[in-house]
Amino acid sequence: MTGSSQLLIVALLASPFSKLPAQRQDPADPIRREYQAAADRIIAAATADSAAWNKLAELTDGFGHRLSGSDALERAIDWILERMRAEGLENVRGEPVMVPKWVRGHERAELRAPRHQELPMLGLGGSVGTPPGGIEAEVLVVSSFEELGSRAALARDRVVLFDVPFTNYGQTVAYRARGANEAARVGAVAVLIRSVGPFGMRTPHTGAMAAYDSAVRRIPAAAITAEDAAMLRRMQGRGQRIVVRLEMDAHQLPDVPSRNLMGEIVGREKPDEVVVLGGHIDSWDVGTGAIDDAGGVVAAWEAVRLLHRLGLRPRRTIRAVGWTNEENGLRGGQAYRDAHRDELERHVVAIESDGGTFKLRGFGFTGGDSAYAMVRQVARLLKPLGADTVLRGGGGADIGPIMALGVPGMSHLVDGTRYFWYHHTPADNVDKVDPRELAENVAALAVMAYVLADLPDALPRGGAVIRDY
Amino acid sequence: MTGSSQLLIVALLASPFSKLPAQRQDPADPIRREYQAAADRIIAAATADSAAWNKLAELTDGFGHRLSGSDALERAIDWILERMRAEGLENVRGEPVMVPKWVRGHERAELRAPRHQELPMLGLGGSVGTPPGGIEAEVLVVSSFEELGSRAALARDRVVLFDVPFTNYGQTVAYRARGANEAARVGAVAVLIRSVGPFGMRTPHTGAMAAYDSAVRRIPAAAITAEDAAMLRRMQGRGQRIVVRLEMDAHQLPDVPSRNLMGEIVGREKPDEVVVLGGHIDSWDVGTGAIDDAGGVVAAWEAVRLLHRLGLRPRRTIRAVGWTNEENGLRGGQAYRDAHRDELERHVVAIESDGGTFKLRGFGFTGGDSAYAMVRQVARLLKPLGADTVLRGGGGADIGPIMALGVPGMSHLVDGTRYFWYHHTPADNVDKVDPRELAENVAALAVMAYVLADLPDALPRGGAVIRDY
Repeated sequence: MTGSSQLLIVALLASPFSKLPAQRQDPADPIRREYQAAADRIIAAATADSAAWNKLAELTDGFGHRLSGSDALERAIDWILERMRAEGLENVRGEPVMVPKWVRGHERAELRAPRHQELPMLGLGGSVGTPPGGIEAEVLVVSSFEELGSRAALARDRVVLFDVPFTNYGQTVAYRARGANEAARVGAVAVLIRSVGPFGMRTPHTGAMAAYDSAVRRIPAAAITAEDAAMLRRMQGRGQRIVVRLEMDAHQLPDVPSRNLMGEIVGREKPDEVVVLGGHIDSWDVGTGAIDDAGGVVAAWEAVRLLHRLGLRPRRTIRAVGWTNEENGLRGGQAYRDAHRDELERHVVAIESDGGTFKLRGFGFTGGDSAYAMVRQVARLLKPLGADTVLRGGGGADIGPIMALGVPGMSHLVDGTRYFWYHHTPADNVDKVDPRELAENVAALAVMAYVLADLPDALPRGGAVIRDY
Repeated sequence: MTGSSQLLIVALLASPFSKLPAQRQDPADPIRREYQAAADRIIAAATADSAAWNKLAELTDGFGHRLSGSDALERAIDWILERMRAEGLENVRGEPVMVPKWVRGHERAELRAPRHQELPMLGLGGSVGTPPGGIEAEVLVVSSFEELGSRAALARDRVVLFDVPFTNYGQTVAYRARGANEAARVGAVAVLIRSVGPFGMRTPHTGAMAAYDSAVRRIPAAAITAEDAAMLRRMQGRGQRIVVRLEMDAHQLPDVPSRNLMGEIVGREKPDEVVVLGGHIDSWDVGTGAIDDAGGVVAAWEAVRLLHRLGLRPRRTIRAVGWTNEENGLRGGQAYRDAHRDELERHVVAIESDGGTFKLRGFGFTGGDSAYAMVRQVARLLKPLGADTVLRGGGGADIGPIMALGVPGMSHLVDGTRYFWYHHTPADNVDKVDPRELAENVAALAVMAYVLADLPDALPRGGAVIRDY
């Protein structure tokens, strides 16, 4: 996020759009001339009410969390498909995907020495459970893989705690991913990490860990709060013996069926050319996954519904997708690639919204130079929303598999200040989404998808592809 | 807090101290002339290291929460008394206080319809438990006592939820205090409130409720999170039937012994005249009560220790106090009044720190006009800390009983932005306290106490007493 934000500032300083009114008349800007009226109409309709937020609240209140393998996920998918059909979207369907089913079960952690205290925690997705009766062991606190390496002899039969303060997600999440394997390698019996997030209120953050390394023992892994991790580090600094007790029933069940959900507006001239937009419908099993990522799904869905309601049928097809199993498997994105392999050459672009539907600044784009120039032109239509910035680099986990096969990819650029406060926590709920900001996300997705689907010439493939997201 | 903040801004704008260097030489300001060097020395010593923060961390990490009636509270008091003696403070002692012992026990709340979900909750201090097996009932959501009155017929045999968004503490806490009695009056079987706080991350806030009204049934009372309260209100708005299950083992045991802790620097000329400063050593049984109020106790204790270390023995006695049982009984403040009734006429002033040791702006003062003028003069010594504001109105729960008998009262004025984020939550931990800000609180308390204890004439009693805190 930090890197992107810096780029964003540079882009805004260098913005050539400071004389907007004159440019709106510019006859040399055919996209403006052709589409500004439609864009303004879309924006006005999207921001006229709180329809998107109400839908998001109904979805997240109504079904709660949607972990892969849960009944709630499948019932939420059914509900969306039913609503899409009732709204008149076309080719509404769920495409089958087999997904992993990891079950958290009962879990708790307790400090046993130097004194007794509950340690609020969340097991990491994919973790094994503890043996029946739990694990009780001394704790070794380290602040990096390097420190663990240098103190490896002290880790045997211990619970290793990685107390790593948040810098950015990419750096810090490495401990969530690799912590269990690295700790097991030096003989630890379990691993704890400081929750990955810049702020919390004694809030544990869950999330997936990397697959167990077959060369080492599979040890349970959980996140405790930043507050408690820092306290255990202080206790160790005082020379105190620290003992924790960990009980986790977490286990993996056989794969179960789920679905990628989708609904379309079929193109009026080139129905087999497709603009894809969406987010992931699964979530972690804490909170109700409103930011991560029901908001992204609802924004794409509402964008398509709005175009339908306004009677705006573009030349090409627009497909709103809710991918399944982003959080702990990526099976949805892979299944989409496999099911649509034959039509990927005619996928104009894929847009993913998975960074929270906060205040929108524009988009990131991964594709060739001429396509990038064209997307920048389209984004000028979003000037009224302040969402006309397009940076190099964009994509998402779910569209990664089709981007790898050449489909240009985009992601929304939003104010990410608070995203990682709520990410994978019980506090990821609809109240963290602002109705107006969500509506602006809907508007911008609708405009971008509509124009890219309607331009006389499809977004060109080829040219220098810069993939720095 | 809002009212005070507005006053604070006015006071700062009108500040007559913008030409500090010249004023420091002002021979017409005898307090400056006499005490600025000592004040500067105290400030330098207090802010030279993180001694106060380290002490606070050792206390809160070491003993955890300190609810009245808990072993942890008494062990924490023993530890402080031992440390005070080792540091050379005088008349170190614990004065006996019988305190209530309320025990939370197991508790949980679960949404049962329209779907199942855990509802993070905290029972309110003083609540009765549920009958064995819990209570399961339909929910009526209201947003005020008035709305409950107008829908009273719907409340019978229901769980009433007061979903009242935070405005300020005084207004909103009324629902924590009176919610159970008001709901019981119209036949409810339990009461839930939206947690009292402006921000949370699915964070319940506990706190004391008012005594049960003998005319109504004693029903269990608990706080749920703002997020879940808002969700239940939305569900009711959609016409959904809402059922919750509440299990609480909360119960009251017979009173048990506790202590007000204190340590002194005995005055060199008038040892029976006393400046009292302190906070409360008990806390709620969630988090570790660092902000509320171990920080206040440590600030007062460190202030006295620092004066002792610097060899600054004033004319009068300075007494650092940690009152017990502020949170759910106020027995400590009452016992102090009763034990010291004979010397209250010679209590120069009582200063309470119970608003979080955040960035200090100055003090609030309750007393006569001439005393107020004198305190304002003393506060000028704190200009180097930016803590020289003194507003009318100040006091605290623990010193309320002696203020009622005429002792002038003071409280610290701090940046209260985040106080109610953490107040009575599991997130009230030492990491929320900034070492530098705590050190500045220590410095200011030490200067204020030292000078008020050393002035040739004691702070005058009498005159117009404005008690608008």
